[in-house]
Amino acid sequence: MKMMQLYAALKSDLQAIEDRMAVTVTSDFPMLSETSLHLLKAGGKRLRPVVVLLSGKFGDYSLETLKRVAVPLELIHMATLVHDDVIDDANTRRGQLTVKSKWDNRIAMYTGDYIYAKALTVVTELDKVRIHQILSGAIVQMCLGEMEQIRDFFNVEQSVRNYLLRIRRKTALLIAISCQLGAMATDAPDRVSNALYRFGYNVGMAFQITDDLLDICGTEKAIGKPPGSDLRQGNITLPVLYALKDEVIRDQLLREIDLIRENNGQSGSAAAVQLVRSSRGIGMAEQLADRYIDKALKALNGLPDIPAKRNLMDIARFVAKRSY
Amino acid sequence: MKMMQLYAALKSDLQAIEDRMAVTVTSDFPMLSETSLHLLKAGGKRLRPVVVLLSGKFGDYSLETLKRVAVPLELIHMATLVHDDVIDDANTRRGQLTVKSKWDNRIAMYTGDYIYAKALTVVTELDKVRIHQILSGAIVQMCLGEMEQIRDFFNVEQSVRNYLLRIRRKTALLIAISCQLGAMATDAPDRVSNALYRFGYNVGMAFQITDDLLDICGTEKAIGKPPGSDLRQGNITLPVLYALKDEVIRDQLLREIDLIRENNGQSGSAAAVQLVRSSRGIGMAEQLADRYIDKALKALNGLPDIPAKRNLMDIARFVAKRSY
Repeated sequence: MKMMQLYAALKSDLQAIEDRMAVTVTSDFPMLSETSLHLLKAGGKRLRPVVVLLSGKFGDYSLETLKRVAVPLELIHMATLVHDDVIDDANTRRGQLTVKSKWDNRIAMYTGDYIYAKALTVVTELDKVRIHQILSGAIVQMCLGEMEQIRDFFNVEQSVRNYLLRIRRKTALLIAISCQLGAMATDAPDRVSNALYRFGYNVGMAFQITDDLLDICGTEKAIGKPPGSDLRQGNITLPVLYALKDEVIRDQLLREIDLIRENNGQSGSAAAVQLVRSSRGIGMAEQLADRYIDKALKALNGLPDIPAKRNLMDIARFVAKRSY
Repeated sequence: MKMMQLYAALKSDLQAIEDRMAVTVTSDFPMLSETSLHLLKAGGKRLRPVVVLLSGKFGDYSLETLKRVAVPLELIHMATLVHDDVIDDANTRRGQLTVKSKWDNRIAMYTGDYIYAKALTVVTELDKVRIHQILSGAIVQMCLGEMEQIRDFFNVEQSVRNYLLRIRRKTALLIAISCQLGAMATDAPDRVSNALYRFGYNVGMAFQITDDLLDICGTEKAIGKPPGSDLRQGNITLPVLYALKDEVIRDQLLREIDLIRENNGQSGSAAAVQLVRSSRGIGMAEQLADRYIDKALKALNGLPDIPAKRNLMDIARFVAKRSY
């Protein structure tokens, strides 16, 4: 309920961001506009724009300025999704066909490149070099995270720390800088943008852990893709790593993961998913997500007591409870 | 000979750029450093760094500043090559195995993304927002050019104008802004950076036309890949478009191109290449390249008479004459 109220309160500003995103990716090249708008129209939670706007409330709020942060951040996120779908060989995303599935891998690659580049043209309208630096640094880290994910496919011996480092780069950093840059763009004090960075980082970690939990525990209807997708592509996530620590099911789970690998993900992952679901891994992963949420909430402690602060707290609590 | 002298004169500054490129792409992720350095080590003409340095001579020359332009420009060029090789399904580049061939398409995609992002971290060290804007705008145009190339594969009815627009985006713009940004970074007057932009643009057009000529007329040894590669992948270049205007060979050439398409490029392009070689298309394409070189030289007319101006003129003349 609180989330619906929040989205309602931000509606007109979020719509302005949505419009600017559509304008940004539209070119005089029909196929490219079509591929880009395809993903845009599929919607999404728009988590990054939401936290950009709320973080901007701690400074000298200006929608025009914040658009130039929110639009590139969400577009960069989208570009990553387009490239990810090539890697993951995913056919659906948010219940829709992926670009790589509706068109092909080559088109998906250049669509991603194009959206990346367009995102940069928007952020460079801001006359704050430090913001450009932070954004490009974050993109580097995201690429590293993606490469780590490929490297670690089917590596059942990886540590939890390894997993956490990977999702830090892959997911948490972009949400962290969404908060940070929203504050920086509106000239909030460094103390505030640093606190918001820590908030975003911890929310991002919880967000990805929850995403990984949903891939095991969610229904196809709720998550917009068949459950167990991560396992089928070899992505060993936190609930699986924790489940593997459970001596009772470890050997059986290892055999199931081996089977998935041997059949290149074609044989399905239902048995492995069932094993993880019934293991202690789910509860342990949920606990860790909750710990990150606690840290996120603590990061807000020293900030001024404005409505946006309570909104951010609501978001943090929602992230760990969401079922989609 | 003049080229060798020029490279010798720029040697230490070019080496500094080379070193910075290597440092930039090196990460604590061995596979990524390996894929990135793989391409870096293959070398190349380093045309973009050369013109950045020479253009910087028209301003307040500073190697430290110019590195922050030359390194990202050459890295962006390299990133494009990595992604192109995925699209082109190319196995060799500059006589070496391509990233996508030595590793795979997924690795090649993220290596390209990573090199792009790293390039941005270097240019954003410069406290000149206008430079960031020009660079991101140029990357957008390059993506459009790449998409146009895919769209136009095997389109034998495309106009010469269509071809020229495509190579403008794909190649000429990046060389144009290499000249422009070299001047802007060193605070040369706008008049100078604009003239250098026009020089670079025209050199870039001539450069790509010559590249396309070499793909038809060159030997595998000289160009580092089998001749006729463009045709095999469906890329209809200027010499081919001109050859198709020759009524005597048009029908036969169309049949050969059809055959290539039907066999997905597997059957070879020797007959088509031979037809184009013996057509008027070669001479006509050479003439157009020469016209661009003339325009490039004219663009330098109003610039101060410093040695760098003569060096740029030498480069322009060399570009249209090169055989590799």
